[in-house]
Amino acid sequence: MPTSQTAFASPAAGPPAAALEGVRASIRAMSLENISTLARGSLGDTSVIPLWFGEGDLAAPAFIGEAMARAVADGHVFYTHQNGIPELRQALADYQTMLGERPISPAQITVTTSGMHGLMLAVQMIAQVGDNVIVIDPVWPNLGATAVMAGIEARSVRMDQTAEGWVLDLAKLAAAMDARTKLVVFASPNNPTGAMIPMETQVAMLDLCRARGIWLIADEVYNRIVFDRRNAPSILDHAEDEDRLIVANSFSKSWAMTGWRIGWMVHPPSLGPTLAMMTQFTTSGVATFIQHAAVAAVRDGEPFVARIRDYCRDGMTLVCDALHRFGRVHMGPRPVAGMFAYFEVDGMPNSREACMRILAETKVGLAPGAFFGPGSESFLRICVARSPASLGEAMGRLEGMLR
Amino acid sequence: MPTSQTAFASPAAGPPAAALEGVRASIRAMSLENISTLARGSLGDTSVIPLWFGEGDLAAPAFIGEAMARAVADGHVFYTHQNGIPELRQALADYQTMLGERPISPAQITVTTSGMHGLMLAVQMIAQVGDNVIVIDPVWPNLGATAVMAGIEARSVRMDQTAEGWVLDLAKLAAAMDARTKLVVFASPNNPTGAMIPMETQVAMLDLCRARGIWLIADEVYNRIVFDRRNAPSILDHAEDEDRLIVANSFSKSWAMTGWRIGWMVHPPSLGPTLAMMTQFTTSGVATFIQHAAVAAVRDGEPFVARIRDYCRDGMTLVCDALHRFGRVHMGPRPVAGMFAYFEVDGMPNSREACMRILAETKVGLAPGAFFGPGSESFLRICVARSPASLGEAMGRLEGMLR
Repeated sequence: MPTSQTAFASPAAGPPAAALEGVRASIRAMSLENISTLARGSLGDTSVIPLWFGEGDLAAPAFIGEAMARAVADGHVFYTHQNGIPELRQALADYQTMLGERPISPAQITVTTSGMHGLMLAVQMIAQVGDNVIVIDPVWPNLGATAVMAGIEARSVRMDQTAEGWVLDLAKLAAAMDARTKLVVFASPNNPTGAMIPMETQVAMLDLCRARGIWLIADEVYNRIVFDRRNAPSILDHAEDEDRLIVANSFSKSWAMTGWRIGWMVHPPSLGPTLAMMTQFTTSGVATFIQHAAVAAVRDGEPFVARIRDYCRDGMTLVCDALHRFGRVHMGPRPVAGMFAYFEVDGMPNSREACMRILAETKVGLAPGAFFGPGSESFLRICVARSPASLGEAMGRLEGMLR
Repeated sequence: MPTSQTAFASPAAGPPAAALEGVRASIRAMSLENISTLARGSLGDTSVIPLWFGEGDLAAPAFIGEAMARAVADGHVFYTHQNGIPELRQALADYQTMLGERPISPAQITVTTSGMHGLMLAVQMIAQVGDNVIVIDPVWPNLGATAVMAGIEARSVRMDQTAEGWVLDLAKLAAAMDARTKLVVFASPNNPTGAMIPMETQVAMLDLCRARGIWLIADEVYNRIVFDRRNAPSILDHAEDEDRLIVANSFSKSWAMTGWRIGWMVHPPSLGPTLAMMTQFTTSGVATFIQHAAVAAVRDGEPFVARIRDYCRDGMTLVCDALHRFGRVHMGPRPVAGMFAYFEVDGMPNSREACMRILAETKVGLAPGAFFGPGSESFLRICVARSPASLGEAMGRLEGMLR
């Protein structure tokens, strides 16, 4: 995914400092800019309406924090299992089984420090320098960046924007594969487009990967933010236990636990000990009491998950209705999943410049499409997971610039 | 550090499963066994006295948990700064300045998901496949293993056990360096030996590294567990801001926060943006409310740090006095730092077998020296950070096997 890494020059001025020269070249070549750096100057500034992250304004419900406080009081403050505490692995296995059509066992679950950490473990476990990974985009930049950071080539296969929405062309995917391709990573429901890859396409992707011994990595963190059903279907339903398939998920979206830093992977049972070892040598595991909070979230959080879904659906309606009134905005069919509206604006070809200008002039924080892969430079992303009042205010502020 | 990776065969039986075959070879070649896997079957078994981890039986004081609960109630539950929240970077800069002889600024601090995560970031930022790193051992196996996991060669330079304790031979260090050596990593105070590398030797190490453009990585997580002074001296006192020097630390030992998963790095100011980027693409940062808890620990935790130090000192006395009475035990001078007694036993050349047998027969969990580097196969490690009652009971149980 060269664009997400090189679109923006590093902010270095003058000769590089001595220490920075000692950083390896492939890391130095990466852009230091991402949504976090764009937002950094505005964190904590309440005059800014922050629609740049995949993060809403609802906090996780109080019972989750209470479960954490209870775990601390009960002494769950020491080192623990590297694949996650047994209660949480069981709760997540039950949860995945409830959502899907195939039973998932605790041996297929590893708790991670975040969805990101799970994706990093997957990439580093499978690929190395000299290999390549294929990233289906537009997509959250971190999917490809974690590979590039490890010195691995990330190849973009771009979904096509059609009248029916964003569509993956399997022929393009097959053409991008070669003998050094080790994995294909995709997100469905997608961030930023909201597109869900139809299950028949996902099955075809798995078949393509199976035939070549390539891993399939599915980022399913938005699988509960679907407006017309309980959850997005998962390729897990059509896989065997020992398929080269890893599904990454997170507590950040479904339970609004972005700041809690916890996720999980569903993986072949045979990988459990390897993932425990890699966890030991990357983060040494997830805070014990946060895992107990996560058990509470999984077991008792379904009403809140439904609330988050409805909140995003209502936000999507409000934002898309407003954008629809702005004549310069071009957007495909209204997304039925995810947290984002993703669109172009006539006369705004450079999304990064546009976001900086919009932030400066309206104090609304948007994310530039440029981060989401080659060909996405002219897109803007709005997170819709906020209150009607906040989103209404934001759309009012944006109207002058986007109409 | 080949021994720590290959000393023990993987527990695989029969033909490997299909998915595991898809893991890259350098990861599959690593031993799946470490202290965590040895202990796994006994976690939560109260009949076992767990002296295998670098973890005591004191929990962090209540005010730290209260600060965390307050942070959750105050809404510090969202994404935040990738280098760490400003309050914590400032608190840690003040703390490092207080301990040392040279001012440290917040721009030199990055908060990490653990001491381990900081070491992983350092290794992956600097070295890649084809490079090598030098590990001064005996030492905590994770230092070398995180490099091996990334496909990087780890070279052992073993300290020599002398009548005065464990001593680093600088000539051996220099001889191990070549054109592909990218960093040298050491721990002082040392885990497992408790040895502190004299500051004149550390300065010579820095000079050796400076002359060759090699990075020096100091693991200082035991820097407050020193029995005859407030803290171990740091090579930071003798470095320039832009020296290729990274110091990794953790809240796990000084504040007994093993299960909280938070640490920090002191690094050249020029690396801040690069470390923020790498944090984004590895874990996406540390739970916001845990960072607030850490602020409380740093600002108000000094009395507790002193208590932990005294607790370890008393535990060291009790354990070493007992070991001294066991005629078969050989141990150097009593450590003046750290959490461990490290020793050999006549007739027990295989530490892993010995630990398994000791666990089975006495329900005392020890760590095998075999994990700590080549030449350490016959050593055993005991963590002394426990109550006199628990340690007394443990030494009583061990007497029959070790006397």
